[in-house]
Amino acid sequence: MEEAVILLNWWASPFGTRVKIALSEKGVEYENREEDLFHNKSPLLLKSNPIHKSIPVLIHNDKPVCESLVILQYIDETWCNKSPLMPCDPYERARARFWADFADKKLYSKGRAVWEGKAEDMETAKKELMETLKLLEGELGEKQYFGGERFGYADVAVVPFYSWFYSLEKFGELSIVEECPKLVEWGKRCMLRPSVCGALPPQDKVYNLMLELKGLNQQH
Amino acid sequence: MEEAVILLNWWASPFGTRVKIALSEKGVEYENREEDLFHNKSPLLLKSNPIHKSIPVLIHNDKPVCESLVILQYIDETWCNKSPLMPCDPYERARARFWADFADKKLYSKGRAVWEGKAEDMETAKKELMETLKLLEGELGEKQYFGGERFGYADVAVVPFYSWFYSLEKFGELSIVEECPKLVEWGKRCMLRPSVCGALPPQDKVYNLMLELKGLNQQH
Repeated sequence: MEEAVILLNWWASPFGTRVKIALSEKGVEYENREEDLFHNKSPLLLKSNPIHKSIPVLIHNDKPVCESLVILQYIDETWCNKSPLMPCDPYERARARFWADFADKKLYSKGRAVWEGKAEDMETAKKELMETLKLLEGELGEKQYFGGERFGYADVAVVPFYSWFYSLEKFGELSIVEECPKLVEWGKRCMLRPSVCGALPPQDKVYNLMLELKGLNQQH
Repeated sequence: MEEAVILLNWWASPFGTRVKIALSEKGVEYENREEDLFHNKSPLLLKSNPIHKSIPVLIHNDKPVCESLVILQYIDETWCNKSPLMPCDPYERARARFWADFADKKLYSKGRAVWEGKAEDMETAKKELMETLKLLEGELGEKQYFGGERFGYADVAVVPFYSWFYSLEKFGELSIVEECPKLVEWGKRCMLRPSVCGALPPQDKVYNLMLELKGLNQQH
């Protein structure tokens, strides 16, 4: 059966980047369609994700799947013969899901607070971000990847935020590499994988975008 | 192997209720330990969930699993011989995960806005809650359960909020049964299952608790 795989995406989204990494790990060919989220969402996006109206959406043989962590699991279960992302053991699966969820609930919001933040809130935002990063550093410990020896689901969920590190250091005037050296090493290790290196946007491009968005926010 | 299963819980939590339902569906015996979340979290809770310090936590043979949706999947994958909660088909699994996530992201917050809400925000809160409930009503359609013929993962994730309906109607001065009759019928249908009926707290007890919490909030 011929497969039609379309990804509705926006280049700077860490959530969309997760999906690109997973599809690449699985060797799935797909069409990436950039959405204009700010001015003109496509009719296909609005039809495919009427609830949240957000990217990423994976459309596989005309069936839409929404929400990045749901999509990652869909990809892992659909193309299950190659590069399993999820561990086999139920307890290890639960740990992987926990840390992926942690990235959604904490890393995204604390990171965003730093790059969007106004000066008066900056000290709290920086402190909370560093606490969040140190929890990840602690979980990683001496392991190669979050799941151990093998790159997997939690890595795919967390690593897109590695492309924020340069911006966070600049905006927050902090050194992630000094405080979380293992996490930075892990980020570099992941970047050696073509799936990750090919999916993450360049750190300076992300920084320029954040500068622009920050400027727009301050105008309003 | 003898199984030691402990649930750290709080009787009014819809997230804890999910876990009780799942364990009951699987026929797993466990010890339910009530936590005093407001005044005195137990050392076991703080040790088992150092990241979020929240219930529910399932401790299975000394290994803690946190976050209710992660726990549900752990239960389904660990006690996999009885009453599967997750469908087999990857696309149906993705749909179930999407609606469970929707309950976390929308139903909880919109419901809470209505029962906690101050009078001046009430109209917006009520409108957004009804929109959220109508999306669930639409997804349910003519089906018996969210996944079709069989009670499953999305039902377990959503049905604890059925015990909020009476409170939401009272505080919001609205009629869920008039606007979402299928959703209310589904709630009643789920309540016929011993797993659900035995896990959900009585609606009037929930109402009294919400009254009390609302009063406390207004004092501060």
